[in-house]
Amino acid sequence: MTNGDTLGRLGLGPGKKARLHRILYKHGIANGTALFLPYDQGLEHGPRDFFANPAAGDPRYILKLAVEGGFNGIAVQIGLAEKFFWDFAGEVPLLLKLNGKTDIPPDDAALSPLHASVAEAVRLGADAVGYTMYVGTRAQEQDFAQYRQVREDAHRYGMPLVVWAYPRGDAIEAKGGKNSFYAVDYAARTASELGADVVKVNFPRPDKRTGVKPEYDAEFSSQRAVDSVVRSANRTLVLISGGEKAGDGAMIEKARESMEAGATGLIFGRNVWQRPHDESMRFVTKLREVLVKYPR
Amino acid sequence: MTNGDTLGRLGLGPGKKARLHRILYKHGIANGTALFLPYDQGLEHGPRDFFANPAAGDPRYILKLAVEGGFNGIAVQIGLAEKFFWDFAGEVPLLLKLNGKTDIPPDDAALSPLHASVAEAVRLGADAVGYTMYVGTRAQEQDFAQYRQVREDAHRYGMPLVVWAYPRGDAIEAKGGKNSFYAVDYAARTASELGADVVKVNFPRPDKRTGVKPEYDAEFSSQRAVDSVVRSANRTLVLISGGEKAGDGAMIEKARESMEAGATGLIFGRNVWQRPHDESMRFVTKLREVLVKYPR
Amino acid sequence: MTNGDTLGRLGLGPGKKARLHRILYKHGIANGTALFLPYDQGLEHGPRDFFANPAAGDPRYILKLAVEGGFNGIAVQIGLAEKFFWDFAGEVPLLLKLNGKTDIPPDDAALSPLHASVAEAVRLGADAVGYTMYVGTRAQEQDFAQYRQVREDAHRYGMPLVVWAYPRGDAIEAKGGKNSFYAVDYAARTASELGADVVKVNFPRPDKRTGVKPEYDAEFSSQRAVDSVVRSANRTLVLISGGEKAGDGAMIEKARESMEAGATGLIFGRNVWQRPHDESMRFVTKLREVLVKYPR
Amino acid sequence: MTNGDTLGRLGLGPGKKARLHRILYKHGIANGTALFLPYDQGLEHGPRDFFANPAAGDPRYILKLAVEGGFNGIAVQIGLAEKFFWDFAGEVPLLLKLNGKTDIPPDDAALSPLHASVAEAVRLGADAVGYTMYVGTRAQEQDFAQYRQVREDAHRYGMPLVVWAYPRGDAIEAKGGKNSFYAVDYAARTASELGADVVKVNFPRPDKRTGVKPEYDAEFSSQRAVDSVVRSANRTLVLISGGEKAGDGAMIEKARESMEAGATGLIFGRNVWQRPHDESMRFVTKLREVLVKYPR
Amino acid sequence: MTNGDTLGRLGLGPGKKARLHRILYKHGIANGTALFLPYDQGLEHGPRDFFANPAAGDPRYILKLAVEGGFNGIAVQIGLAEKFFWDFAGEVPLLLKLNGKTDIPPDDAALSPLHASVAEAVRLGADAVGYTMYVGTRAQEQDFAQYRQVREDAHRYGMPLVVWAYPRGDAIEAKGGKNSFYAVDYAARTASELGADVVKVNFPRPDKRTGVKPEYDAEFSSQRAVDSVVRSANRTLVLISGGEKAGDGAMIEKARESMEAGATGLIFGRNVWQRPHDESMRFVTKLREVLVKYPR
Repeated sequence: MTNGDTLGRLGLGPGKKARLHRILYKHGIANGTALFLPYDQGLEHGPRDFFANPAAGDPRYILKLAVEGGFNGIAVQIGLAEKFFWDFAGEVPLLLKLNGKTDIPPDDAALSPLHASVAEAVRLGADAVGYTMYVGTRAQEQDFAQYRQVREDAHRYGMPLVVWAYPRGDAIEAKGGKNSFYAVDYAARTASELGADVVKVNFPRPDKRTGVKPEYDAEFSSQRAVDSVVRSANRTLVLISGGEKAGDGAMIEKARESMEAGATGLIFGRNVWQRPHDESMRFVTKLREVLVKYPR
Repeated sequence: MTNGDTLGRLGLGPGKKARLHRILYKHGIANGTALFLPYDQGLEHGPRDFFANPAAGDPRYILKLAVEGGFNGIAVQIGLAEKFFWDFAGEVPLLLKLNGKTDIPPDDAALSPLHASVAEAVRLGADAVGYTMYVGTRAQEQDFAQYRQVREDAHRYGMPLVVWAYPRGDAIEAKGGKNSFYAVDYAARTASELGADVVKVNFPRPDKRTGVKPEYDAEFSSQRAVDSVVRSANRTLVLISGGEKAGDGAMIEKARESMEAGATGLIFGRNVWQRPHDESMRFVTKLREVLVKYPR
Repeated sequence: MTNGDTLGRLGLGPGKKARLHRILYKHGIANGTALFLPYDQGLEHGPRDFFANPAAGDPRYILKLAVEGGFNGIAVQIGLAEKFFWDFAGEVPLLLKLNGKTDIPPDDAALSPLHASVAEAVRLGADAVGYTMYVGTRAQEQDFAQYRQVREDAHRYGMPLVVWAYPRGDAIEAKGGKNSFYAVDYAARTASELGADVVKVNFPRPDKRTGVKPEYDAEFSSQRAVDSVVRSANRTLVLISGGEKAGDGAMIEKARESMEAGATGLIFGRNVWQRPHDESMRFVTKLREVLVKYPR
Repeated sequence: MTNGDTLGRLGLGPGKKARLHRILYKHGIANGTALFLPYDQGLEHGPRDFFANPAAGDPRYILKLAVEGGFNGIAVQIGLAEKFFWDFAGEVPLLLKLNGKTDIPPDDAALSPLHASVAEAVRLGADAVGYTMYVGTRAQEQDFAQYRQVREDAHRYGMPLVVWAYPRGDAIEAKGGKNSFYAVDYAARTASELGADVVKVNFPRPDKRTGVKPEYDAEFSSQRAVDSVVRSANRTLVLISGGEKAGDGAMIEKARESMEAGATGLIFGRNVWQRPHDESMRFVTKLREVLVKYPR
Repeated sequence: MTNGDTLGRLGLGPGKKARLHRILYKHGIANGTALFLPYDQGLEHGPRDFFANPAAGDPRYILKLAVEGGFNGIAVQIGLAEKFFWDFAGEVPLLLKLNGKTDIPPDDAALSPLHASVAEAVRLGADAVGYTMYVGTRAQEQDFAQYRQVREDAHRYGMPLVVWAYPRGDAIEAKGGKNSFYAVDYAARTASELGADVVKVNFPRPDKRTGVKPEYDAEFSSQRAVDSVVRSANRTLVLISGGEKAGDGAMIEKARESMEAGATGLIFGRNVWQRPHDESMRFVTKLREVLVKYPR
């Protein structure tokens, strides 16, 4: 299978294309889809996320899970990358998360500060970098300013840039909330307009209609909503995130609708590792059964 | 027809002159007038602007429209330029929009943060850069500071600088609003005083008189108002923007009055692409019929 | 005893490994454990801390104590390092504290400003640098920004980075307080996610449950809490700090539980030097009797 | 005709593609071929080259000739560009020659020093830059070092780089001379290996066989030689230079063979302007009659 | 098979380990051995090397051959990488050759000038960089100075550094010549002493004894010689180069002896592509039959 049909049409330079090809066609199912394992919850939420499965507090356990489960990449902060990636370097692609914050102070003017640079990602042998952009927050000027530097560096180094496009802040809360179809659709488009190569969004909720713009205040099926989000992202590849752990059936159905809409893949963390190892693997197998049906 | 008569009198260096000549005399009608297609609404308003014509959500569709419609240039943000301009590079001039924002948080101290630099515009092969200046906003110090850097870079690289001169903020709202003759006239002059090569303004509304300065609190025809705006801009070329979609007859009449006043051209987005393809082309044909009568 | 079993598994480069090996296997008990003497209270609290034992106000007295007591290192600010370390250079490792503040203004948006750089630590012959990070404070953006520079410099110079991970600020106060198991556990994890080589935390208080996240609102023994903190720190070595002077029996028991949990060692200041010289030495002897039982 | 068929396959970024598209499809015959007018002989040979037609000593005369003759670009040094290009800016593409030398000192370790930068070419509104590389000279280390900076800058600014690939030096003289098939073939390949977008070479002379490598010491037709040179340049576009003024019939035949071989076009100076104006135009017409038959 | 046993013992940081793992365990036979395809002869020798198989003059043909033949990487100069690698980005690892020269001027003080930087290799998505060091040349001060910068950059970016360790110059000619056991052994050691991650050497000739140091002036089998060379390189991985095209049987025997000695693999160019496509593939199959027997 060649990537000429898909990656070749995205306007990527050789470095970004080489790294994305590696992620999408040399790891995981290797059919152009992706299943990422995010593991920055220790910073974003604290160790409480590991109480459901204490083994998951050990980064080595998670990295092994990523290798065994055939993930297309693992997303971690610089500290864990420095201390744990070496052991598995080259076996699973590293998506270095460049910014992050604790959830201790309030979120009304949310901003996620930088902890590492694209140059450090290069040094660590990462195949992509991740940046959390809080779309709609009052701190958007600062957010856009630090994002811009990341985008320019990612371009200069040929490093794929994955944007966690997260609607946040009081204005968003007043306009349907962070998971509304309106907010997720706008976030996907913003990432695309500002040069993300890949965008990670939550699955859109068309039923969240209070306060949204009139165009979104209508009946939409979840399929129609996710279709629209993928279209808004145009040549920016879409990853749908899992969010909090939920029922497997619902998650698999979301995954199926996302792939049907044209998403590139999934980025599921807590739904994967907040359970015993063997259950994690069984759930991953089900996700792979979805992905295998949608070669890109 | 040579441009010696018009561009030659504007005090431009060779780079700016070469690029403006290319835009005005090598594309579109090639008679010194201009019709630009702005396409940054996906960031400024979100995907809701594409609900009237879903095809318009695809940047490739819009770029093709710009080529087919014989536009003098297309204005996009860095993300779309990176991923879509290559396909049409050289076929239609690129006006890289350097700043922009979402409309989610409130607008009282509006500021449009930078997403790209003039150097990136050079790299992409752009023939002009665009900057949104919110004239009259409380954030004007930051706005002017970032504008100043853009202006200096544009000078250094010989890159024409198009200023979106938009009155905004609570003080403007208290003095006639953002489209009043007073506000638009002041905005055009501000752009000219601060070194814009081209200024994009809304068509002035002389009827918006509540709170305006006494000089503007009188009966003015719309022709007289737009004459004044073009005069205020002096050697800064003027583009009149279309704003929200409105009736074709009214838009054409605005276009005619603008050209009669000495404007260089028009920059119409939603009025062009918020309708089916063939209707778009018919509307563009009507605009060209106006422009062809006003060689510069 | 070789350090291959412990330091070799931490993902350290050669410079950090050489310096940590020196601290852990060439000083103190030389069995891979550590006993540090912190001496920055003159800045953090003022000379009031020396009233209990006026001799302790003299940095030379403290440095001598560190040598006599067989400490693995002494932590001081740049001023004392410049003027007093020369006399004992090479006899006891220097842990240069890079930031610090007075306790005079209020603490709600605590931030500890930088006073020295990693480069100065190199110049002084230090074997490690220390940085106080206030986890959960509203000033976290500034804190993370200055920390990031320190981390990058420490990496470049191969200098071990010890993070004083201190929960602080009004949000922390509202969620169980700065010594709660929840807060200390989150702080240890944050240091690890952000690349500390060693983290200094207070002994966690599982009984502080008012306002903590539900996962922490349960009965936990102090042993179970400190076990969890060390696990959260994963490959970041843990030092348990003594805090305010307390009863010797309680301190020794905390030390024992910490070592049982897998901590690397202790960093005790006021409990050591807020008493006459000979009592200090007797207390140190008891601490060493604990450490000697836990070779790493 | 779209450029998708040709420029789209060369591995160019958007800026280089936009500028080359402009040169090849918006000027001259606009069919993907090129006819360039080089005018740096005043530096390279001195004013003696203008004795045949004194009017040609006036840069304004030459620029007008370029516009009237429908050339795809004019190549000049920085001084003439600064003083003469403004008058015709936008009417004919500027190829700013970045290095050059007099022919007064001997040529055995030939090196052409830099006089301007790519940044200056951007400022002047140039659509390409030119660099003379003396392939095979003993000064190749210096030559390659200054070339490398030009190539990197051209990449950064998206500026097409035209390499005058000229075999020179005593080693070349001993191996068949500067116009031998061996030397020209090697020069074309060298430009391609080192990242030229366009290479300018002399028409190869397969009859110059004394001292050449064995592979070239055989009977080759001139067509076969020029075929080989174009193939050696692979994705680097080839311009064949005219060199000293010669008979029109021979020049036209060389042009025809070059285009037959797949060259992009011609760069003829002295053959064009070392004669009266009307004769120049007649000769240009004949060259265009060749080019029009080879759309790319 | 995991790389823990081999790459894990070389003292590599995470970036170099990740990239080498990718080359050695994700491409080619994926057993820790390597077969590289070098393609810089167009610069080093000129197009004459393609006369035996003209198709080989087309870089696209060679890149396809590398993919079809299951090579572990392809070595090219910046120009070919910029224009041809994009098409196959991610399908075969890129080894960007950073320096190179023509063979036109004499070789007595050979020095290979830089054409690209490690940063450009990162941008292009390369997995390694290559540097030709002329061991023993009179220009060694310049050579070592430019090498040092490359090594530091390679370290900073985590990019594996492959050194073409080539004995050259009149002093080498006087001491056994460039392929003598003495010269090759010394070159391998030099690369290792100066920080190469991989060294490319010619197969040593123990029979070249005229002028060599006394230790080498004895009877050595070729196996013993290549054993010694690999040992001299210690933790620097060894690639044996093929050099000029020779008989297949002799080449395969050299390959076998090299692998028996502990070399990581082979780097064969002219022996591969100076023949028709199908013969190339048959020869590659034979080389792979050797490599498969020596998993690392």
